[in-house]
Amino acid sequence: MKVLVINAGSSSLKYQLYDMTNEGVLASGRVERIGMDSSIVTHEPADKPEVRDVSEILDHVTAVKRVIDMLTHSEHGVLGAMTEIDAVGHRVVHGGEVFKGSVLVTQEVKLEIKKLFDLAPLHNPAHMMGITAVEANMPGVPQVVVFDTAFHQTMPATSYLYPIPKVLYRRHKIRRYGFHGTSHSYVSDNAARLLGLPLESLKMVTCHIGNGASCAAILDGKSFDTSMGMTPLEGLMMGTRSGDIDPAIVPFVMNKEELTLNEVNSMLNKHSGMLAISGISSDMREVTEAMTGGDENAKLAFDMYTYRLRKYIGAYAAAMNGLDVLVFTAGVGENAPDVRAAVCDGITFFGVELDHELNARRSKEARVISTPGSRVKVLVVPTNEELLIARDTYAIVNETK
Amino acid sequence: MKVLVINAGSSSLKYQLYDMTNEGVLASGRVERIGMDSSIVTHEPADKPEVRDVSEILDHVTAVKRVIDMLTHSEHGVLGAMTEIDAVGHRVVHGGEVFKGSVLVTQEVKLEIKKLFDLAPLHNPAHMMGITAVEANMPGVPQVVVFDTAFHQTMPATSYLYPIPKVLYRRHKIRRYGFHGTSHSYVSDNAARLLGLPLESLKMVTCHIGNGASCAAILDGKSFDTSMGMTPLEGLMMGTRSGDIDPAIVPFVMNKEELTLNEVNSMLNKHSGMLAISGISSDMREVTEAMTGGDENAKLAFDMYTYRLRKYIGAYAAAMNGLDVLVFTAGVGENAPDVRAAVCDGITFFGVELDHELNARRSKEARVISTPGSRVKVLVVPTNEELLIARDTYAIVNETK
Repeated sequence: MKVLVINAGSSSLKYQLYDMTNEGVLASGRVERIGMDSSIVTHEPADKPEVRDVSEILDHVTAVKRVIDMLTHSEHGVLGAMTEIDAVGHRVVHGGEVFKGSVLVTQEVKLEIKKLFDLAPLHNPAHMMGITAVEANMPGVPQVVVFDTAFHQTMPATSYLYPIPKVLYRRHKIRRYGFHGTSHSYVSDNAARLLGLPLESLKMVTCHIGNGASCAAILDGKSFDTSMGMTPLEGLMMGTRSGDIDPAIVPFVMNKEELTLNEVNSMLNKHSGMLAISGISSDMREVTEAMTGGDENAKLAFDMYTYRLRKYIGAYAAAMNGLDVLVFTAGVGENAPDVRAAVCDGITFFGVELDHELNARRSKEARVISTPGSRVKVLVVPTNEELLIARDTYAIVNETK
Repeated sequence: MKVLVINAGSSSLKYQLYDMTNEGVLASGRVERIGMDSSIVTHEPADKPEVRDVSEILDHVTAVKRVIDMLTHSEHGVLGAMTEIDAVGHRVVHGGEVFKGSVLVTQEVKLEIKKLFDLAPLHNPAHMMGITAVEANMPGVPQVVVFDTAFHQTMPATSYLYPIPKVLYRRHKIRRYGFHGTSHSYVSDNAARLLGLPLESLKMVTCHIGNGASCAAILDGKSFDTSMGMTPLEGLMMGTRSGDIDPAIVPFVMNKEELTLNEVNSMLNKHSGMLAISGISSDMREVTEAMTGGDENAKLAFDMYTYRLRKYIGAYAAAMNGLDVLVFTAGVGENAPDVRAAVCDGITFFGVELDHELNARRSKEARVISTPGSRVKVLVVPTNEELLIARDTYAIVNETK
C-alpha cells in the first residue's frame, strides 16, 4: 500500500510518498509560490537525482496535478500510474475539541474543519484547499486528516482552561489546544521504546524546538499539559514568536504605537523571539555562530531562549510531580548540542546529568545523551511527523475497508 | 522617632503610625470614598476603641488633614501634636528602572515618579496625591517613598526582558518589573532569620498570594525572577486577574467581542481569575467553602489556582537549579492551609514534605510547616509591608540627618 502525505500551506504544498510495506519514502518534494509568479516544484525521488521545475501554478488543484505528474513521470517518477496511490494523508493544524484523533475525510469532517477556520485562520483554510485539490485530481481515493492538536485532547481542564470569563470558552472555544501533537506523540513513543520502558508509566517532558517550539508534559503516555495555547504564540520563546509575555503588553503597545489587531499579532508572531533579541536571525545556527564570535545580543537571545525552556521543564516536572525522561526533537532540539547543554546543565537539581561527549556527537539516530547514572534519562529523538501521518492514514484506511 | 506610613489609592488612604523605638503600631486606619459621597474615616488607636467618622472628604489634602486630626485628637488620638511625627513613608507601586531602593522625596524624585504614570496609571498618580497632600499639611517633614518594584531590580536581563522588538523596551520601557517587592523582601529575610540560615546562600521561592498574587525566585537574597511583569496582570491566577494566558487571546477577544483597549484590560484585571472560574467569588475563603460543599466550579477554580502556582514553583526551582526554602505569605498564603497542602503535596519530587498537622494549625506567627526531614523547608511568614516601609523611612531619614 502506498500513501501520499500532504502538508498544504497557503502558497506551498509539501509531499512525501510512502511505501507502507517497509515505511520507505519513495519520493518527497514541495511546490512553492503557488498563486504567485513562477512557481517552483522541487521533486526528490529516492534513488534518482532531484528535479526542479519552474512554471505557473495558480492554485492548489494545479499544484496537486503537478505533484502527480512528477510522481508518475516516465523519467523521474516512482509510480507507473496515479492509481497506485492508495490513500492520502493530510496534516491539519487545528482540530479544535471535535477531533481527538485522526479521521477519514467525509463531508461532515470537512464541515467541522471549516468551522475551525476562526481558530486557525492562517492554516486550516490552506489545508482545506489541499483536501479539495486531492479530491479534484484523485476522485475516490480515501483521505485521512491528522491534527496537530489531537494528541493534546487528553489534557485535563486544569491545564486547558484559561482563568478568564467562561463565556469566552462557551462562545468562542477559547482554551488551550496545543500544537505539534503529532511530533510530541511520535517522539514520546519512540523514546520509551528506545529505553525499553513502558510509556504508560513514565513522566516525560518532550521539547519540540524548531522555528516554532513547544514542550509537553506527557504523563503515562498522555499529553497532560503543553506550552502552546489557543494559538501557537503562547509558551516558549521561538524563532520569531514571543511566547509568554504579560498579556497587558498587548493593549499597552496597541495604544502607544497605534497598532491594529493584525499589526500586533504580526509583531508578536513574526518580529519577536530570537530574531528580536539577537537582532541577527530567527535561526539558532546563526545566533549560536554570532554568539561564539562574541556578539552580546546573540548571547542574550540564546540565554533567554534556554532560560525560558528550562523554566517550562521545571514547571512540568512540578505539574507531574516528577520527571523520568526528557526528550529533545525538531530542528534545534536535534541539531543544537549547545542548547541542550545549556538547558540540562541548569537543571542538575532535578536529577539531570548530561553526558557531554554523547551530547556533542552528531547523529541522525534516536539516542540517549545522559550519563548512565542520570536519574532523568535525556534523549534526542528525531521527529518524523510525515511518517506518523502516513501510519495513521494507513491504519484508518485499512480499518474502514 | 515616630513614622507615619501612608498607602494612598485614588479614592482611599490607609495609614499606620509607628513608634520606631520598639516598632510598635500606635494607631492605624483608613479613609475611604475620598471625593465621593459621605467619606468614611476608620481610626484604630492601639489601646483605645475604634472610631468611625462619616463626613465629606473631597481630596487627598483633606484626607491627610483628617488623619492628623484623628492622630492628635484629645480623646482617641495617640499624639500630643502633629510635630511629633518625624517622618512619613509612602508605598509607591511603580519605581520603574530608576528606583532600585527607597529614597527621600525631593523635587527630582517627584518628577521621576510622574514619568512613571504611564506604566502605572492606576497607582502612581494616587501615590503622588498622597505625597503632595502630606507636603501641604506637614511642611518640612521628611518623606520617603518605598517602591513595590525596587526589590526586583536585581533581576538579570534574561528574567526581565521580553522576547519582543527591542524598540519597545527603549521607547516605552516595556520589561518585567515585578511587584510586591517589599513583601517578598520582608518575608525572605524573616524566613532566613527564623531558620537561622544565611539568606545570602539560599535558593528561595516566596509566594505572596493575596487577592493579587505573585511569586519570586530569590537567589542568594536577591530577586532573580518574579511572576508579575510589566504590570501586575502577568503570572499566577489571582482573585480577579487572569495571570498568564496566550497573548493572542487579547486581539482575538477584542475582535470577536468588539472590545476597546480599556474593556479588555478591565476584563483581564477585574473579571477573570478565581472569580471567573468559580462563578462565586474572588475570595479564596468563599471558594474553598463552596468547594467543601461540593461545588464543582469552585473545585475547578481551586485546582487551577494551585496547579498554576505549583508550576511556577517548579519553574523557579529550575531557574535557580535548586530549592531550599518555600515561603507562603499574604491573605491566602497565611490563612489557607488547603491551598498550601494542595501545592506542597504536588511537589514532593522536589524534596518538599509538609507536616500536615503544623500546616493546619492556626497562628499569627512566622513558622515552619514542613517535616524535620523535608529537604525543602516550607514556612508561613506573615507579611508586613507597612513595617518595612516604616523601617526604610526611619533608616533613610536618619542617614540624611
